[in-house]
Amino acid sequence: MSEDWLDAVNWTQDGLVPALAQESSGGRVLTLAWMNREALQKTVQTGEVHYWSRSRRKIWRKGEESGHVQKVKSIRLDCDEDAILLEVEQSGGIACHTGRHSCFYRQLEAGAWVTTDPVLKDPLEIYKRS
Amino acid sequence: MSEDWLDAVNWTQDGLVPALAQESSGGRVLTLAWMNREALQKTVQTGEVHYWSRSRRKIWRKGEESGHVQKVKSIRLDCDEDAILLEVEQSGGIACHTGRHSCFYRQLEAGAWVTTDPVLKDPLEIYKRS
Repeated sequence: MSEDWLDAVNWTQDGLVPALAQESSGGRVLTLAWMNREALQKTVQTGEVHYWSRSRRKIWRKGEESGHVQKVKSIRLDCDEDAILLEVEQSGGIACHTGRHSCFYRQLEAGAWVTTDPVLKDPLEIYKRS
Repeated sequence: MSEDWLDAVNWTQDGLVPALAQESSGGRVLTLAWMNREALQKTVQTGEVHYWSRSRRKIWRKGEESGHVQKVKSIRLDCDEDAILLEVEQSGGIACHTGRHSCFYRQLEAGAWVTTDPVLKDPLEIYKRS
């Protein structure tokens, strides 16, 4: 398969692009993370979202530890070719490492970030080693 | 007012944070752009979304030329404090400079980015000088 679609992406100098995951049912925005070329390619090939971890400097299959994988329904590119929008099905209904549905669980209210979303599962339970 | 809420944002080395706008009615993701501290502050103060234009290196009130302003309904911060989610009301139902509803108007289909959204208004009409 031609890689023209990968070349079309306007990668940063570091070879990355911001990718945001939106839940197909309900439309909630779940996560904003980063992809490199290989992560986007693996996402398309496997149908499961792969990101690039900037802190760990490696490809990371979302849910590889937690089981909270993101199955891809569609992939979109924006007008400047510098952002990716993923429509996903979120396994377990938990996208955030804090055990919440969405990573955007705080809302600005009267000059303070207020937590509005409950923890659905204790992270110690999510990430316990077998 | 204390600026603790601004200090809580994990700004990049360039002093920026990615900000995505989602339409309150329908939930469509419209744009991903960038904000600096002043843009976020002005967004909160005025109730209209301000971004930082990386190409023009200046604050830009979304819709200042086109009239397609984004009125803020809520502002959210993610778990890593490095992304902002804006819930907005999109004036004119057009967020993209190409005259489309959303900037994410292309979808990956069989290895190619295919335009799925129509142009609602000719950009020449949108940006005509008075």
